Formats: sequence, C-alpha cells, structure tokens
Amino acid sequence: MPKISDKGRMMPESPIRKLVPFAEKAKKAGRKVFHLNIGQPDIPTPQSMIDAMHNLDVKVIEYSHSAGIHSYREKMCAYYKKHNIDVTPNDIIVTAGASEAILFAVQTCLNPGDEIIIPEPFYANYNGFATSAGVKVKPIISSIESGFALPPISEFEKAIGPNTKAIMVCNPNNPTGYLYSAEELEVLRKIVIKYDLFLFADEVYREFCYDGTVHHSVMNLEGIDDNVVLFDSVSKRYSACGVRIGAMISRNREVMSTAMKFAQARLSPPSLGQIASEAAMETPESYFTEVIEEYRKRRDIVVEMMNNIEGVVCPNPKGAFYVTAKLPIDDADRFCQWLLEDFSHENQTVMLAPATGFYSTPGAGKNEVRISYVLKVDDLKNAMISLEHALKEYPGRIL
Amino acid sequence: MPKISDKGRMMPESPIRKLVPFAEKAKKAGRKVFHLNIGQPDIPTPQSMIDAMHNLDVKVIEYSHSAGIHSYREKMCAYYKKHNIDVTPNDIIVTAGASEAILFAVQTCLNPGDEIIIPEPFYANYNGFATSAGVKVKPIISSIESGFALPPISEFEKAIGPNTKAIMVCNPNNPTGYLYSAEELEVLRKIVIKYDLFLFADEVYREFCYDGTVHHSVMNLEGIDDNVVLFDSVSKRYSACGVRIGAMISRNREVMSTAMKFAQARLSPPSLGQIASEAAMETPESYFTEVIEEYRKRRDIVVEMMNNIEGVVCPNPKGAFYVTAKLPIDDADRFCQWLLEDFSHENQTVMLAPATGFYSTPGAGKNEVRISYVLKVDDLKNAMISLEHALKEYPGRIL
Repeated sequence: MPKISDKGRMMPESPIRKLVPFAEKAKKAGRKVFHLNIGQPDIPTPQSMIDAMHNLDVKVIEYSHSAGIHSYREKMCAYYKKHNIDVTPNDIIVTAGASEAILFAVQTCLNPGDEIIIPEPFYANYNGFATSAGVKVKPIISSIESGFALPPISEFEKAIGPNTKAIMVCNPNNPTGYLYSAEELEVLRKIVIKYDLFLFADEVYREFCYDGTVHHSVMNLEGIDDNVVLFDSVSKRYSACGVRIGAMISRNREVMSTAMKFAQARLSPPSLGQIASEAAMETPESYFTEVIEEYRKRRDIVVEMMNNIEGVVCPNPKGAFYVTAKLPIDDADRFCQWLLEDFSHENQTVMLAPATGFYSTPGAGKNEVRISYVLKVDDLKNAMISLEHALKEYPGRIL
Repeated sequence: MPKISDKGRMMPESPIRKLVPFAEKAKKAGRKVFHLNIGQPDIPTPQSMIDAMHNLDVKVIEYSHSAGIHSYREKMCAYYKKHNIDVTPNDIIVTAGASEAILFAVQTCLNPGDEIIIPEPFYANYNGFATSAGVKVKPIISSIESGFALPPISEFEKAIGPNTKAIMVCNPNNPTGYLYSAEELEVLRKIVIKYDLFLFADEVYREFCYDGTVHHSVMNLEGIDDNVVLFDSVSKRYSACGVRIGAMISRNREVMSTAMKFAQARLSPPSLGQIASEAAMETPESYFTEVIEEYRKRRDIVVEMMNNIEGVVCPNPKGAFYVTAKLPIDDADRFCQWLLEDFSHENQTVMLAPATGFYSTPGAGKNEVRISYVLKVDDLKNAMISLEHALKEYPGRIL
C-alpha cells in the first residue's frame, strides 16, 4: 500500500471536528446540544438570493470567466465604493469562498519555507492553508487582557526574519471579535513598508461592527497598494455560506495576473453561487440594520452572562459574531469534550470551540473557548445557564 | 514592492487563454469565430437540475458537510452501482469540480519533489496542479500513430524512479478521445502493484463512449483498492460545468481521512451545485442516449472531414468529445494565432487549441491541435471547411 504524503500527515485536523462524534452521541442520547461552536449563522439568506435561483433563466449552467462573472465583479465594485473602497473589476478574482482566495494568495506570494506572521488566536484554517502551501505561520500573541488588541510593533519586529514574506490579519476578528482601530492599521502599514511585506487581510465580517464603531479596510491604507491583498466572502455577510463565493482583491497587477494562473487551472468559481451573490447586491440596507441589531443583542447577552460567571473573563468585542473567553478550567479541549460526554443541565448541554485550535503556539489558549453567538436570544440564554452550571460541576475546575 | 513566489512565476499559463485576446479582436472586426478550443458543451443541462433551483426550498443557504451532502453521496453510490462500481458514501468526498479532487489527491499522496507519470498529451491543467503542489510530472509519449494508445509497459518502467509515487490517466482521454481497453488497464494494474504506486484516474467522460465500446473503470481493477483514486465531475456528464461539482473517490481509508483534512480546511463544496447535482441523478437514460448519438455524429463529421484534408492525420477516437489531429504545419501555436489574426474564409475562422499545451515534453505536439466537437453539426461542417482553406493558405504550411 503506497504511503500518504508528509504534508497529508502534518495537515492539522479541525479542533471542532474532533468533537463532532461526541455531539452526535449526546444528541442520540436525547440531550439538546446548543451549538455555539460554529460560524454558520441562523439568519435567513436574503430573499433576493433565493429568488435568483427560483428565476434562474439559463439553458446551460456554464463555466463563468475564471475571474468571475464580469457583471458581478462590476456590482462588487459598486458595493466596495459604498464602503469607500475604490477597486476595478480587474482587481477582483471571484473564488470558491474566502478559503480559495487565501490559497491563491499564499501560493502567489509565498514560497514553501517562507513565513507569515499572524496575531493569534486566529481562524484555525489558516494553519491548514499554510500547511498545504508548505508555508510557516509565525504567531504573535494578542492577549485576552488587552481584549485581543493588535500586538505592539515591537512584537512584530521580534518575529520578522529573513524568510518573513507577509503579515495576515482578520478584521473584525474570528475568533475574538476584535475590531482593529485606524491607529492599529497604521502600525501595520508602517511595518509592511519598512520590511517590504505583503499584508493579507480577511475582512469577511466588515459589516458586523457594533456600538457605533467603524470598520477600516486595509485597502485604504496609503501607499501600500502593491502590498495589500484582501480576502472577502459573501458567506457571513448574507448568511449564505453554502454558495461558496468569495474574492481575492488586490491592486498589485503582478499578484493578480499570477493568481489568475491558479484561477484558470481550476477553470471557474461556482456559477450558481455567483448568480445568487450578484442578486444579493440588491439587498436593502435595512437587512443589515436588522441583522446587526440582532447580533448586537446577542453579544450583549453573552458578554454579560459570561462575566457574571465566577472566574470567567470575557472581553466585549466590537465586531463579528464571536467572543473568546477565559474559563476557570484546566484544559479547554477536555472541558468541551466533557460538556458533550458527561454533562447535562435540564437535559441540555453546550458545544463550544476550544481556543487551542486558534493558536499555533503550543499550549496557548488552554483555558479559553470561542463562543459563536449564532443562536436566537432565548437559546443563547439557556446555553449560558447550562454553561454556568457546567463550570460549577466540571472536575477540572480551577479557581 | 514585495516579490511574488517562484511557484507563481513557474505556474504555467493556459495555452488557450493566450489566444483569447486574438479571438476577441477577430470578433470585434466582425468575423465569426467557431470555438473548437473549449470543453464547454453546448448541450442543454438536464431540466431536473434547473428545476431543482427553481424549486429551491431553503431559508438559509448553508454549508454542507465537508465531504458533501450525505443524501447526494448516497445517490452517487447508486449511480456508480449502475456502472458496476461498488462504493459507499465514505469513499466519496464531493469537491469543487474534478479540479479540487485532483488537488486534494496530489496533496494527500505526493510530497513536493515526488513524481507522477502521465501519458501525454494530457489535460493541460494537470501541469498547473502539479506545479501548485510542487510535484514533478514525468510524461511518457502516447503517439498519434497508435491513435494515442497507452504506451507499452517498458516505457512506464523506463520512467519510474525512486521518487515516482503515482501514475495518472484520463479515460476516455482529454485531449485525444482515446478509450483505454480492459487490457491496457490490466497493464496499469500490474505496474502499480509491482512498484507500489498510486493510480489516479480521471473518468469524467465515462458516459461518452461510441461505436458500442464499453468504459472500464480503474475502480474495478482487482487487488488495488488501496492504490486507486478516482476523479469525477458532473460538468461534462450533465453539461453543467458551472455547478462546480466533482468528487474524489477511493477505498483507501488513510487517503480519504487525510483528504478530509484538506476538505475541512475549505469547509464545504458548493451547496447549490450539490442540490442541482443530486437532482441530476433523476436524469433519464434517454438523455444520454440522445447526447451520445449527437456527439457520435459530430465526431464522425470531424474525423471524416479532417482526414479528407491533404496532410492531416486524425485518429478516430472512441470516447469523450475531443480529437487530437496532426496538421501539415510548422508550429501549432503560430498557426492557431494566425487563424485568429490573419485568416478568414467567408468572414469566418476557427479557434483551436494548440496541442503543445497538452504535452510537457518541450517541443512535443508542435504540429498537433485539439478539436473539441462541442458545436452543432452545421457549424462543425462550416468550421471544417474554413480549416481546410486555412491549411491551404497558411504561410507555415509543410507538405
């Protein structure tokens, strides 16, 4: 039997996936499991997207242009313009989710062995994309004490070495919900100029900003057009994760023409998803106003109830729909498994994402979990009550 | 300005894409261009797939399971059963086209620097996938004189070295249309056992077999379940290239569980495309009977008219919807560009794919072109007449 590759062996397994069999067992045993572990929103997809499928008017479901349907890219430009970002259709390659955009950018910009600096905790799958491209992630820690703010410039400079090619940020952040300030972005701008680095930014949660805060895009940082690559996605914006439509965006012509070779090799992004996403551009502003108000309420409940639990530290983030909280426990992986295997309160339990999967520094985040507030308010309240009881009963509780 | 990666620089550009600007210019100048260069069929997508979108009944377009919707994978098993292939849903990962399936398999099974043997000419994008995974393609030539039959076992053995990890075939073949016989597959079976190699097979044209021939799948080769990985796609089968739904299929458990880590990193294959593809399973056999009869007619016309042109050698392939033919020309790339830039007959011209892009041996295929017979019979006839005139006029004609 031929052997699998070293890369295949090294490829990290999602820390959440490991818990799935335990969740299934809990459900089979009749327990209700509140899923606070996932990034799949429960918010309805805009009717315009569903209607676009109901009214699909084609004889042949054809490949699109490898960079995406031109009229869709034009409408994307109008969308970005509303967010004060000036781009042309040539600056955009439509991809199969932000995932494919990240893969294209990493392959286009980094050689195997090159390093990419990412403030941690970070979206777990960045590790997978790096492994698959043979690239090394150099984490620098954003601490929960600072609410997961951008680490100081000195930490970046300590991490930068001869193989450093890029810095990557997610803003607003998954898994922390942290929204970077204009000043923090300015820090990034200075570093990438000084060290001639690429700046990758995952801004898929752009709309989800609370308490009157404003999102600042890396696309508007002065004088670094050739350094910046943006990753975007309609998944969270329109609660349409299944359409698998994202984008890689940059004003660096060499980067885009090189990325196009990767895009052409896979022929086309999904056409149906593009048609739906083009229709999504007609979504009225009121959709976002309502959705953001709903998430804001949910966040407030989670943050308040969490901080009322003894020993819990839960920052109050300004964006996305995640919080990363510190719990009075010995080991988040063990705790999350215990919740599903051994715990129930009124026949209910909670599924959380252990934060260890969001760090690449071994041992970091051992007493932290990510909570996605993608459930309705009443369910969230019940989930928080269950969690409070669980933290009293858990044998590995640390006070 | 930071530099792009070596891999990005080395990534091959599609030989067809290079011609696109010339085709656009020809059209702008008012000439009709017959597109025989593409793999986008003109056949209507089955109504069941369009109806599945018209009747889409979801509130949220959600991620599917990373391996694909379970009910779709179950129906795929029933489809394979009809083709005498026994697989379970666990043997299947649904992917964004066969392209993603190939990427997953190459990453799962080969290390950077490993070699994969592919009879050439082969589907041009295999080069791109290999480059993107840092893997080396070792071509062995299938000659036009033998109608592009599988090279003899001695040629494989000459190519096999210490870094050889896999053999890849496409059956029926793109770009030659060649359909491998049971005996030829037996040759492959023996080689992969003897040298403990993976056998990758792209069988996306399975249904397209003519003249009463039968397709033999690598999945039915005895005793090599752990070696075989199958790539499939609904793109050509249902003339639905835009849904971007393919599959990676293997009975090797370690390969599949490793590939799942790559699949999980990108979360989900396209959900809308999967819903359409699941509905496609209801397509009546009469659809294929008609489509195959239509392609058979087209092939007959192309092969007959081509062989009637002086100096042309055109084999009569049994499968897919391509022929690769030898022309009396100095250089296929130059000829294909000349057709678009400088030639017209009754204000019409032809766009062909130079075969050089389907070889990785430098200089091979210099006087060959691939013709996709994806146009209606009348258009095909007109295109062949234009081509005949062009071959008389072309300044680089060689007799």
